[in-house]
Amino acid sequence: MKKISNIYDGGRMKVEQVEIDLPGGITLERIVVKPGGAVAMLPVENDFCYLIRQYRYPIEKYIYEAPAGTIDEGEKPLETAHRELIEEIGFRAEELTEKGYIYTTPGYTNEVIYLYEARGLSPSDEFKSDLDELIEVVKVKKDEVREMIADGRIVDAKTICLVYKCLGE
Amino acid sequence: MKKISNIYDGGRMKVEQVEIDLPGGITLERIVVKPGGAVAMLPVENDFCYLIRQYRYPIEKYIYEAPAGTIDEGEKPLETAHRELIEEIGFRAEELTEKGYIYTTPGYTNEVIYLYEARGLSPSDEFKSDLDELIEVVKVKKDEVREMIADGRIVDAKTICLVYKCLGE
Repeated sequence: MKKISNIYDGGRMKVEQVEIDLPGGITLERIVVKPGGAVAMLPVENDFCYLIRQYRYPIEKYIYEAPAGTIDEGEKPLETAHRELIEEIGFRAEELTEKGYIYTTPGYTNEVIYLYEARGLSPSDEFKSDLDELIEVVKVKKDEVREMIADGRIVDAKTICLVYKCLGE
Repeated sequence: MKKISNIYDGGRMKVEQVEIDLPGGITLERIVVKPGGAVAMLPVENDFCYLIRQYRYPIEKYIYEAPAGTIDEGEKPLETAHRELIEEIGFRAEELTEKGYIYTTPGYTNEVIYLYEARGLSPSDEFKSDLDELIEVVKVKKDEVREMIADGRIVDAKTICLVYKCLGE
């Protein structure tokens, strides 16, 4: 993959035009979306999880999701997970267990999301929501979360992956 | 969400710059990636599933995925699913069961992937692989697929969602 040009540079979010060499001397032109890495966490407490409901402008809808956020320059994914838990739902977590990572849609982006299960939750006094995120925190029974995936109330890919990894068999 | 300009127009794949109005008179500028809709299918036969292993240039790696593909102009998702099963793994499916849909990463793209479980498989004589896809078909035991997710050999989000929906509890 060889970069030809920058199509967009919005700081953390970049879009590049690239050339890809295939066997047989064929060259294709494509774009790559580079949004930087991210984390997503499923906060779990006894029989309950915490989700957020937020507005997503690309789909012009409110949807249910696990708390998540992008990794700042120089930050380790685990640090981001702690920070975003406070920013998005106002909780500190004693334990963040690594649950692997996912590629969200590797056909055109290099985006990776590191997954964590969050336990040992306590309210944080540093709670402040990001300006551009309109977020409602919801506490949902584990069984209800599984039902919400089955009946299509949860349609966010990272959230489904997290639930599978944290609450699956 | 108001479109300001086209940043990239590659036919099916578009990137747009948009303005978003927030409560309180705040306006943000963002981009939206519009790759068009897609489908992904988990072909299941007795105790086995079929996956593909393919090179993804944005991450410069070979990864395991469920067969998938983008919806052509005027095509219904179910038609795409039948077509892509033949193109990617060379099978016709008698039954394609709808398993809902996912948003891959709604923070910056409107991409939606419709999910299907494919059964009643038989080899197709129309099998032809797409030029830009280097694909190996692999037949894997259901239990092995679940292990591959647990141990991180499968990291593709849509594939994890499909396995959860088709092989989950």
